[in-house]
Amino acid sequence: MTQDTNQKIVLASRPEGAPSEANFRLEHAEVPEPGDGEVLLQTVYLSLDPYMRGRMSAAKSYADPVEIGQVMVGSTVNRVLTSRHPDYAEGDVVLGNSGWQTYSVARGEGLRKLDPAQAPVSSALSVLGMTGLTAYVGLLNIGKPQAGETVVVSSAAGAVGSVVGQIAKLRGCRVVGVAGTQEKNAYLKTLGFDESLNYKADNFADELAAACPDGVDVYFENVGGGVFEAVLPLLNVGARVPVCGLIAHYNQTSLPGGPNQVPQLMSSVLTKRLLLQGFIVGDHFERLPDFTRDMSGWVKTGEVKYKEDIVEGLKNAPRAFIELLSGGNFGKLLVEVSAPPH
Amino acid sequence: MTQDTNQKIVLASRPEGAPSEANFRLEHAEVPEPGDGEVLLQTVYLSLDPYMRGRMSAAKSYADPVEIGQVMVGSTVNRVLTSRHPDYAEGDVVLGNSGWQTYSVARGEGLRKLDPAQAPVSSALSVLGMTGLTAYVGLLNIGKPQAGETVVVSSAAGAVGSVVGQIAKLRGCRVVGVAGTQEKNAYLKTLGFDESLNYKADNFADELAAACPDGVDVYFENVGGGVFEAVLPLLNVGARVPVCGLIAHYNQTSLPGGPNQVPQLMSSVLTKRLLLQGFIVGDHFERLPDFTRDMSGWVKTGEVKYKEDIVEGLKNAPRAFIELLSGGNFGKLLVEVSAPPH
Repeated sequence: MTQDTNQKIVLASRPEGAPSEANFRLEHAEVPEPGDGEVLLQTVYLSLDPYMRGRMSAAKSYADPVEIGQVMVGSTVNRVLTSRHPDYAEGDVVLGNSGWQTYSVARGEGLRKLDPAQAPVSSALSVLGMTGLTAYVGLLNIGKPQAGETVVVSSAAGAVGSVVGQIAKLRGCRVVGVAGTQEKNAYLKTLGFDESLNYKADNFADELAAACPDGVDVYFENVGGGVFEAVLPLLNVGARVPVCGLIAHYNQTSLPGGPNQVPQLMSSVLTKRLLLQGFIVGDHFERLPDFTRDMSGWVKTGEVKYKEDIVEGLKNAPRAFIELLSGGNFGKLLVEVSAPPH
Repeated sequence: MTQDTNQKIVLASRPEGAPSEANFRLEHAEVPEPGDGEVLLQTVYLSLDPYMRGRMSAAKSYADPVEIGQVMVGSTVNRVLTSRHPDYAEGDVVLGNSGWQTYSVARGEGLRKLDPAQAPVSSALSVLGMTGLTAYVGLLNIGKPQAGETVVVSSAAGAVGSVVGQIAKLRGCRVVGVAGTQEKNAYLKTLGFDESLNYKADNFADELAAACPDGVDVYFENVGGGVFEAVLPLLNVGARVPVCGLIAHYNQTSLPGGPNQVPQLMSSVLTKRLLLQGFIVGDHFERLPDFTRDMSGWVKTGEVKYKEDIVEGLKNAPRAFIELLSGGNFGKLLVEVSAPPH
């Protein structure tokens, strides 16, 4: 047992537009006691992801919002401190959903044991976890890239985008990544992307057109906004657009000015026979065995590389999350809440 | 042979917005002579379809535009007057693509023989032809309706929409049709639609919501504009939107005023995991055997009913086509160019 207190970051208020640190509050509470069939967990890593912005708003997005005063939700890697569950022992490392707090109690059913000898346990929250699976199902189930096709990925240096681009390369595609800093663009070239563009460049739309001389067959949408507008005229007949995220819009409080371009978008959908499909990873867990086999292999051989951006200390989670929404991270953003296992 | 002249309606000028009769010109020419391997055809029926509006503009939509001075394109039922092709004999009735003219010469390869004893030959341009196949593949391949789901069809009294709704009923769905006159609404009820609404009603959005108490699982899009806007908030998680036509937009010369609602649309695509997919029937000819088997059966048993709106005389085609674009027809619009076979 621990003499510590449980630190929890709760939702203090709902943001209007971009969240600020004032929307979060750090609270201290007693470390909870596990009941029969439960385990006491210490959080090692907390995953920070753009979808959490949706949970801070009152409107239902994928799931119910976090209530004011509730602990912010999130996937975690945890160490088992005390077990009253037959399947778990003290010292086990597990994948859980403890949210933004240092200690938590869980029933065994929602946990998955991790083997630190197989892969760094943090990767269960990144390339071998939900972000990797998101890239895998979005690209392969919806994007269906064929060898020789052109795939454009937005937020390409991000946890999902970087994996999308690398899988597309493994499938024999021309891959064009879009990111927001020169450093990220350079990184994408080291991952084997054919071209890497900065959407903040004045002539971005022209550069994108030049980088896609045969048009675009798959656009993996993570951001929306101006990147989508630049891609739309380049989409080929029969192009597929897996819609994974729209980070450019998450903090918007009002719609942009006119004209209303919905008719133009729908007209492109019609005349180019486009497929636009939103998805969340939770609808595709049937691909988990395929994913685990393929991705573990690719990571072991180095065919898929990944980058983690690790921030230390739970108290820094709000600031790191706020920066994530404006592209301030570089790699899968994780908070190291307590020292990881050796 | 005939002593007649060939009457042709050519594109005189490109319309700005809604076409007018001045955009067409009736010309007279000699009846052409068939060469070796060719047949001389007399047009019996000409199909008029909304996609033709796209061909009148200079911009490429699905296919190349009709050039100024060229005969307007279109599917036709024809009678063989003279044959220099071994597979066709004088008096045969065939499905062809002669366009807006009374006579034409064709090589045999693009033709399909029709049997007037099996079904009225006009149906090869309506329920048993491209419009029926469009309904079939759009609903079944893309919409994938499941028994108990709610299907909304726009332009529901039209050649495609009326068939979509009836197939959806055969699949066990709740079907809500949207049309633009009381007469059309009444007709849809005779086809077995559960509800039939007039999009011109002031409280249309409320009526639609009331008609879809369990939300909308499939929206078969023929029109765009206000109907799409009313359906969007009703779409359920995982809803499918086959985009078949956007007749409300075809005559638009500028985009509607702001705000730009693309972010809102994409946000719905994401959070509701919608599928929006444009299609044209030409991409789905592999379903022709299934379609022919199913639809012939349904038409014979009366499970699928159809209505044709037949205008007499080629010279009336421009006016009929102009009215089609504003919903002035009622049933599949055909021009009877010459007397049909008995």
